[in-house]
Order: sequence, then C-alpha cells, then structure tokens
Amino acid sequence: MRARVYVTLKPSVFDPQGRVVTDALTTLGYDDVRDVRQGKYFDLEVAGTDAEQVRARVTDMASRLLANPVIESYRVEVLA
Amino acid sequence: MRARVYVTLKPSVFDPQGRVVTDALTTLGYDDVRDVRQGKYFDLEVAGTDAEQVRARVTDMASRLLANPVIESYRVEVLA
Repeated sequence: MRARVYVTLKPSVFDPQGRVVTDALTTLGYDDVRDVRQGKYFDLEVAGTDAEQVRARVTDMASRLLANPVIESYRVEVLA
Repeated sequence: MRARVYVTLKPSVFDPQGRVVTDALTTLGYDDVRDVRQGKYFDLEVAGTDAEQVRARVTDMASRLLANPVIESYRVEVLA
C-alpha cells in the first residue's frame, strides 16, 4: 500500500528556509508574497493490505525516524 | 490567499534521500517498507482574492524559483 507522511515545523518554530524563499521571491518581484513555510513529505510503499495496520505502522515510523517530534509535527495519509 | 506547491523529483531521477530513509527504516526493523521517495512543499500566503490569478502567479513562482524543472515536477494547489 502507498502512504504519505507530511512533516512540518511546528508553528512556534522559526523556519529559516521559508524566510529565505520569501526574501528570494520578493527580490524576484513577487512582492505579494506575505509568508512562506517549507515542509517535506515522504511517499512510502509498504507491504500489507490492511489500511489501519499500515497507518499504525507508518505513524510509528514517522515518530521514530521521519519527524523530530520536538520541533516538527506530522500527518499520515494512507492512499491505497 | 493560501496556496501550496508540492515539489517532487521526476520518477526517472534517482532519489538518494529516499534511499537513505528506506535503508534506515529497514535497519530499524521496518522490513515491510519497499520504497520511499521524498518531496517538499511550500505553504505560501499570497495577497489577492482571485483564486485563478493567485494560481497563475504561484505557478510562475514554482517554475522560476521553487522547483528545478529539469529534474523536478511540481503541483500547485490554491487552498482558500
């Protein structure tokens, strides 16, 4: 089954990459950009047919390896 | 308005980060993981009220700065 994990910095954490992108867009003339925050995602192909089981397994992976729960939050989606 | 740009490596391009994550998960005991590909996304806050205008503008930003069209593909979503 395919699953996707979205990882994003918690709102209270400063996002330097997003800040650089905002500044770069402004320099390029896109002065209508107010704010940019950057996140990442992982597309996983996992063996198994039970969606709930795959979700539990991928949530476990997210909290142990894919995200840093101190500064990042994550969301798991099981696709098919 | 809020818009989101998903940027991902084209399928034919090797994804070393994804490979490292796959190997790390396998080492942690998640041997049911077949493949991982990593992507990134940008959450943008853009001035403007017309969804189609914002979409065109953000698509322009994506092709000029946010994605490298040679090796990456992108998808724009206007949220609200």
